[in-house]
Amino acid sequence: MTKTVAVIGGTGNEGPGLALRWAKSGQYHVIIGSRQQEKAERVAAELNARLGRDLIRGMVNPNAAAAADLAVLTVPYSAHLPTLESIQAGLTGKILIDVTVPLQPPKVSYVKIPPGGSATAEAQALLGNEVRVVAAFQNVGAAHLDDPDRPIDCDVLVCGDDKEAKAEAIALAVAAGMRGLDAGPLQNAVVVEGLTAMLIGINIRYKVKGSGIRITGLK
Amino acid sequence: MTKTVAVIGGTGNEGPGLALRWAKSGQYHVIIGSRQQEKAERVAAELNARLGRDLIRGMVNPNAAAAADLAVLTVPYSAHLPTLESIQAGLTGKILIDVTVPLQPPKVSYVKIPPGGSATAEAQALLGNEVRVVAAFQNVGAAHLDDPDRPIDCDVLVCGDDKEAKAEAIALAVAAGMRGLDAGPLQNAVVVEGLTAMLIGINIRYKVKGSGIRITGLK
Repeated sequence: MTKTVAVIGGTGNEGPGLALRWAKSGQYHVIIGSRQQEKAERVAAELNARLGRDLIRGMVNPNAAAAADLAVLTVPYSAHLPTLESIQAGLTGKILIDVTVPLQPPKVSYVKIPPGGSATAEAQALLGNEVRVVAAFQNVGAAHLDDPDRPIDCDVLVCGDDKEAKAEAIALAVAAGMRGLDAGPLQNAVVVEGLTAMLIGINIRYKVKGSGIRITGLK
Repeated sequence: MTKTVAVIGGTGNEGPGLALRWAKSGQYHVIIGSRQQEKAERVAAELNARLGRDLIRGMVNPNAAAAADLAVLTVPYSAHLPTLESIQAGLTGKILIDVTVPLQPPKVSYVKIPPGGSATAEAQALLGNEVRVVAAFQNVGAAHLDDPDRPIDCDVLVCGDDKEAKAEAIALAVAAGMRGLDAGPLQNAVVVEGLTAMLIGINIRYKVKGSGIRITGLK
């Protein structure tokens, strides 16, 4: 059975590109979630126009989470906890893939560790044992995602404490045209999240738009 | 004038390979430091035999630091603070490149953040403003370093608060056959150090010996 993936906060920078790639893969039903129904529907319609097919639906975040098998959270850190609270009821028994990076404006290129250890750990703490949370997709630049035919020279590092949940995130990475790697327990999410701040700094210092990361030495 | 680099704790896993590469580059005078004079001299002699020339000297750590322009610290985390205390007097006005990774045996593939934020930050706090500390070389597997003719598919991420010190570390990376990248302030060292624990886990999970990291998307 084709699984349904909801991109919560899916009208931002990262969400539309991921939704587009998952819809285009033919492997998932895709929902774009937003705080506003109208905005969700508008972005879904724009993406469907680009796909030439009506593959993506738009819903308010709580409904998107409730209708999905897998939820992917792509919101700024300032909206992280309120968004999680708004979707919690629909997530019971499901997997949440947290893409949130705890950036600290205005110094967004400085690694900042949030009080809970990582954004992903904070999500897991809030949602409790009924939801399996994994970290993934933080290091992929939005510019790369947005063109679904463009190869992405970036690995997706997946951290979490549940093997099945990590396997789902790795499958989503592959469906989006990337390599997904098991990067260890949820405790390691601090590094994957922090890498994004470091990559933002590298973008600025080396005058590029979307630096990324590759793990070398694998067979 | 040719600068002298001392590899403090240079008889361990990472030190000899780095010393060999820096000596072979012809760009540095190289000293191997150890707690024991005899051991330092023995490892220096072994490396000189491999080089076919007497390019590397062996000294006890405090003397190595005092005789060097640049010190590179490659010790296990358990020896980090005592080694720093033993070399502090010789480091005044100099640059220390800290390679130490705060691994937490037996769970060495779990990212563990030390009390001071990172090993490098702890070194900077101990040494004070008289020594400029940068983080570098944590992610390069010892197996890769040991053959000086082998190309290494790994970048050296350099974090620190002093531009000149970072430039010295980047030059050392290049002399050792790698690309060195300015990865931001000292605050970002937590990520570079934590990556090593993640890479150890990837080595175990994907059955390889020396996974590494590359930054993609640069010109």
